Amino acid sequence: MQHNQLQIVENAVVYLSSDKTPLFFSDGLVLSAQAVDEERVLQWIAVESDSSDVTKRSDLHRMMDMTAEKLRLIGGSVEMVDVGTQTLPNGSSIALPKVVTARFGEDPSKRTVCVYGHVDVQPAKKEDGWATDPYELTDIDGNLYGRGASDNKAPVLAWIHTVEVYKALNIDLPVNVKFIIEGMEETGSNGLDDMIVAQKDSFFSDVDYIIISDCVWLSKRPALTYGTRGNCYFFAEVEGPKKDLHSGVYGGTVMEPMTDLIGILDKLISPSGKILIPGIREAVAHLSDEEWKMYQDIEFDLESYKREIGLSQLMYSNKVDLLAHRWRHPTVSIHGIEGAFSSPGTKTVIPAKVIAKFSIRQVPNMDPAMVEKQVTDYLHSVFAKRKSPNKLNVTMVIGAKPWLADPKHPLYEAGKAAVKRVFAVEPDLIREGGTIPIARSFQDVTGKSIIMLPIGGFDDGLHSQNEKISRYNYMEGTKLFIAFLHEVSQMEKH
Amino acid sequence: MQHNQLQIVENAVVYLSSDKTPLFFSDGLVLSAQAVDEERVLQWIAVESDSSDVTKRSDLHRMMDMTAEKLRLIGGSVEMVDVGTQTLPNGSSIALPKVVTARFGEDPSKRTVCVYGHVDVQPAKKEDGWATDPYELTDIDGNLYGRGASDNKAPVLAWIHTVEVYKALNIDLPVNVKFIIEGMEETGSNGLDDMIVAQKDSFFSDVDYIIISDCVWLSKRPALTYGTRGNCYFFAEVEGPKKDLHSGVYGGTVMEPMTDLIGILDKLISPSGKILIPGIREAVAHLSDEEWKMYQDIEFDLESYKREIGLSQLMYSNKVDLLAHRWRHPTVSIHGIEGAFSSPGTKTVIPAKVIAKFSIRQVPNMDPAMVEKQVTDYLHSVFAKRKSPNKLNVTMVIGAKPWLADPKHPLYEAGKAAVKRVFAVEPDLIREGGTIPIARSFQDVTGKSIIMLPIGGFDDGLHSQNEKISRYNYMEGTKLFIAFLHEVSQMEKH
Repeated sequence: MQHNQLQIVENAVVYLSSDKTPLFFSDGLVLSAQAVDEERVLQWIAVESDSSDVTKRSDLHRMMDMTAEKLRLIGGSVEMVDVGTQTLPNGSSIALPKVVTARFGEDPSKRTVCVYGHVDVQPAKKEDGWATDPYELTDIDGNLYGRGASDNKAPVLAWIHTVEVYKALNIDLPVNVKFIIEGMEETGSNGLDDMIVAQKDSFFSDVDYIIISDCVWLSKRPALTYGTRGNCYFFAEVEGPKKDLHSGVYGGTVMEPMTDLIGILDKLISPSGKILIPGIREAVAHLSDEEWKMYQDIEFDLESYKREIGLSQLMYSNKVDLLAHRWRHPTVSIHGIEGAFSSPGTKTVIPAKVIAKFSIRQVPNMDPAMVEKQVTDYLHSVFAKRKSPNKLNVTMVIGAKPWLADPKHPLYEAGKAAVKRVFAVEPDLIREGGTIPIARSFQDVTGKSIIMLPIGGFDDGLHSQNEKISRYNYMEGTKLFIAFLHEVSQMEKH
Repeated sequence: MQHNQLQIVENAVVYLSSDKTPLFFSDGLVLSAQAVDEERVLQWIAVESDSSDVTKRSDLHRMMDMTAEKLRLIGGSVEMVDVGTQTLPNGSSIALPKVVTARFGEDPSKRTVCVYGHVDVQPAKKEDGWATDPYELTDIDGNLYGRGASDNKAPVLAWIHTVEVYKALNIDLPVNVKFIIEGMEETGSNGLDDMIVAQKDSFFSDVDYIIISDCVWLSKRPALTYGTRGNCYFFAEVEGPKKDLHSGVYGGTVMEPMTDLIGILDKLISPSGKILIPGIREAVAHLSDEEWKMYQDIEFDLESYKREIGLSQLMYSNKVDLLAHRWRHPTVSIHGIEGAFSSPGTKTVIPAKVIAKFSIRQVPNMDPAMVEKQVTDYLHSVFAKRKSPNKLNVTMVIGAKPWLADPKHPLYEAGKAAVKRVFAVEPDLIREGGTIPIARSFQDVTGKSIIMLPIGGFDDGLHSQNEKISRYNYMEGTKLFIAFLHEVSQMEKH
C-alpha cells in the first residue's frame, strides 16, 4: 500500500492514500490515519490518575487539565464543569475532578454524536505483579503496557486523534462531535449523573447519539457492545473488640470478628456459582431462544479463554452458558478484606474490625435498591444465627444499574458498516460483563441511543496487572472511529 | 519512707533505705531500687527491631549491639553468638540477629540462674490505630507507650537494672546470673533452638534455673506463670488464574480463589468456638478436678475483662471455662488474607492468588507434627468437595509446642516469697494463652527447671495498638527481680 505523507500534527502522523484500502468512503475519499501518538499516550499513562486514592487527587486534576488542553489545541470549544465535592469516610470533603466537555462543529444540518470517555484509572502498584512500571508506558512486541492503556486513556486519545485527522486534512467533520470526559469512572462516576441531569437540555439537547469506547472485544474479531452489567458494591464490616488483640493471649475467649466475617461471606455463593441470597436469581430476565441463538453464533473459543486466564476448568463448559454468565447473569465476587493482616509474613493478631469488600454484578431486571435490601437483610439474618456479640454493618457503596440497547438500531448498522470497512469482517454483537454505569444514566436521562464501540483487545488486562493496548488495536481503532463518523453521517434521518 | 540516695548509675537511680519497706532481706539489708531509666527505655523503643520485616534487619542488628553493649558496661562477660542465616521466601538469605549471652559471677558455691528475654518486636504502624508514634516512647498518666514496651524490652531492662543495682551498691550478687537475649522471638526464635542444643554442655552446663519474664499478669494481682500454649501457624494458599482479573469482565465464568479460600476457612471453627478439624480436640489433656479448683481460686473478673477488650459477651460466661479456653484448650484464629484487596476504597478485582494466615494454639497433649497433618488433610478434603480447578497449598510455617511446669517446684516457692516481699500478696498461679516456644526448648534440651516471672500488666496490649508498660510495674518489677534472686539464693539445695 502506497501512502503519501500529508502532514504531521504534533506526533500524529496522518496519511492520504490513493489506493483503496483500508478505508473507502462513498464520496471517493480514501483515508488512512496512523495515529502513532505514543508520546502522548506515554505522557497520559505517566499521570497516576487513580480516582480511588484521594492522595492522588492532584494527579487526577492534572489529568483533566491535560485532557482539556489537548481538546482546545485541536480547536474544540472546551469547558471544565465543576461537579462538586466528594465526602470522605472521615467526614471531610475534597473536590471532584472537573468533567471536561468539548464541541467540534455546530452544523444543524449534520447529526451530532457525543463521545464519552474517562481518564482516571484503577489502582496499580509494581509489586502487585507488574512486569513493568504501571505508570511508564512500555512497548513490548507491539503492545503498549501501562495502567489505563486500554481502560480508557488510549481509546480517548484515539477519539481525539479522529477529530485531529479531519482537522489536519482540512476536511470538515461529517458529523458534529462532542466530548464528555470524566475522571471518576473507576469509583462510580461521582457527580456525573447530576451533571447529565443539569445539562440535559443544554449540552445534550442537540446530541443524537452517544458513543462509548470503554470496553473490549471478545476475541480477535471486532465487536459492537449492546449491554453491560451493573454493579452493587458492598462493604460488610464486623466490629468486635475495641482494639486488635494478641491471638495467643485472647484466642479462645472472644468471638473473633474475622471468623464471623468469613462465616457470612461463605454464605453468599456456592462453590458451583449459585448465588445464595434469596430473591437475587429470581429477578433475572429469562434467556430467550433468540438470545441463545445469538450467543451460539458468537466467535468465542473456550480453550483460548482458559489459556488466557490460566485455568484448566471454567464455571461452565459450553459457550452459551459461559457467555450468559459473563454478560446476563449476576455473580458475586469477594475482592478482599480491609483491617485484617494482609502483609507477607506472620502476625498473631485478632483483628478488631474487618471490612469485607464484595460486589454483585447487576443484570436486567435487577434493581440495585432491592439488591441492597436483599443483601443487607440476608447477611444480618445469617449473622444473627451466629449469636455473636460483634456488630455487623452492611453498606452498599456503589449501586450501578445494568444497561441494554437494541442491537437492531440503525446506529449498530453504522457500527457494523464501519467495522466491515476497516477490518473486512462482520463484528460480533456482544455484551460486557463489566459496568459502565454512565451508559444507563445517559439512557435514562437523555433518552438518546447509545452504542459501545470498543477498540481494546480481549486480552488487555483491564483492572489487572500488565494492562496494555496493542499498537494494532490503537491504530486500527482510530481508523474505525473515522469510518464510524462517516457511516453515521450516511444514516437515514428518522 | 526515707531514702538516702546512694549513687546514680547512668540513668538508674538506686536508693538505700533504713525503713523496713518494701524489701526486707533476711541478712538485714533493706534495699529499694527505683529504676526510672526512662531514657534507656526510650532509646530501646526507638529502634524498630521488627523481626518479621526483613527491611528492618539492620535495626534489629543494632538492637542486639545495644543490648550487648549495655551488658558489657555493667561488667558482664558478653558474647554475641552467630546463629546463622534465614532463608527468605524468594530464596535469598540474610543474617539472623546474633544471640547475646552474658555472665555475671561464677562462684561455684552459688546457684546460677539464666534470664531469657528478647528485644525484637511485633510490627506496628501509627495508622494501625496507635494514639502515639509506636517507636517514640510516650509517657501518659504513668504508662509508657511504645511497641515492645511490655513485650519484652522493659522487662529485659528491668533484669539488667537488677544486676546493675547490686553492682552500684557494691554488693555481691546472691546467685550467679546469666543472660540469653535473642532477636527473633516474634517470628519463632529462628536459630535459637540449634544454639541451645550446641551450648547445652557449655553455656547451660552450670545453669540451675531458667527465668523468663516475657508474659503478663492476669489481673492487678502479681502472678507466676507455669504454662504456655504453643502455636501452629498456617498459610493456606489458593491459586487460580495466572493474574488478577476484572470482576466485571470475568465474574461468573471462573471459580474465584477468594471464594474457595473463604469456603475452606469457614470450616475451621464453629461460631461457638468448636474446632472442626478432626482429631484436634480429642488430643487435649483432660481438665482435672484439682486444676478446676485452682482456676476457681484465681483472681479474675469477667466483667473487667469484657470492659478491657470492649465486648458485651465472651465465648464462655464463667471464669473456669473462660480461663481453661484461654490457657489449656486449643483455638483457631484467622489473622488475615494476603494477596486480596485490603486497602480502603473499592476495587473490582478477582485476586489470582490469595493466602490465608491462621493459627491453632497448642496445648498438652497436642503434637504440632500431627496437627500439621490433621489440618492439611482436612483442608484438602474440604477443598476437594468444592471441585475447583484452583490449587490449594497448605503449609505450616511455625510449629511451636506448649510448655507446662510443675507449680509445686521450689522455684515457684521462691517466686511466691519474692512476690510477697514486694507486693505483700500471694501471687496467682496462672498459665499463658500465648506462646513462648523457647520455654519448651529449654525444658526439652537442658532439662532445667523454668519459671516465668512476669512484670507486665494484664492490660499492656501486647501485639496490639498502644502497647505499654506502666511505670509502677516497671519499677516494682525491678524490685521483684532483686527479691527473687535473693530468694533463690535461700532455696535449700536438693
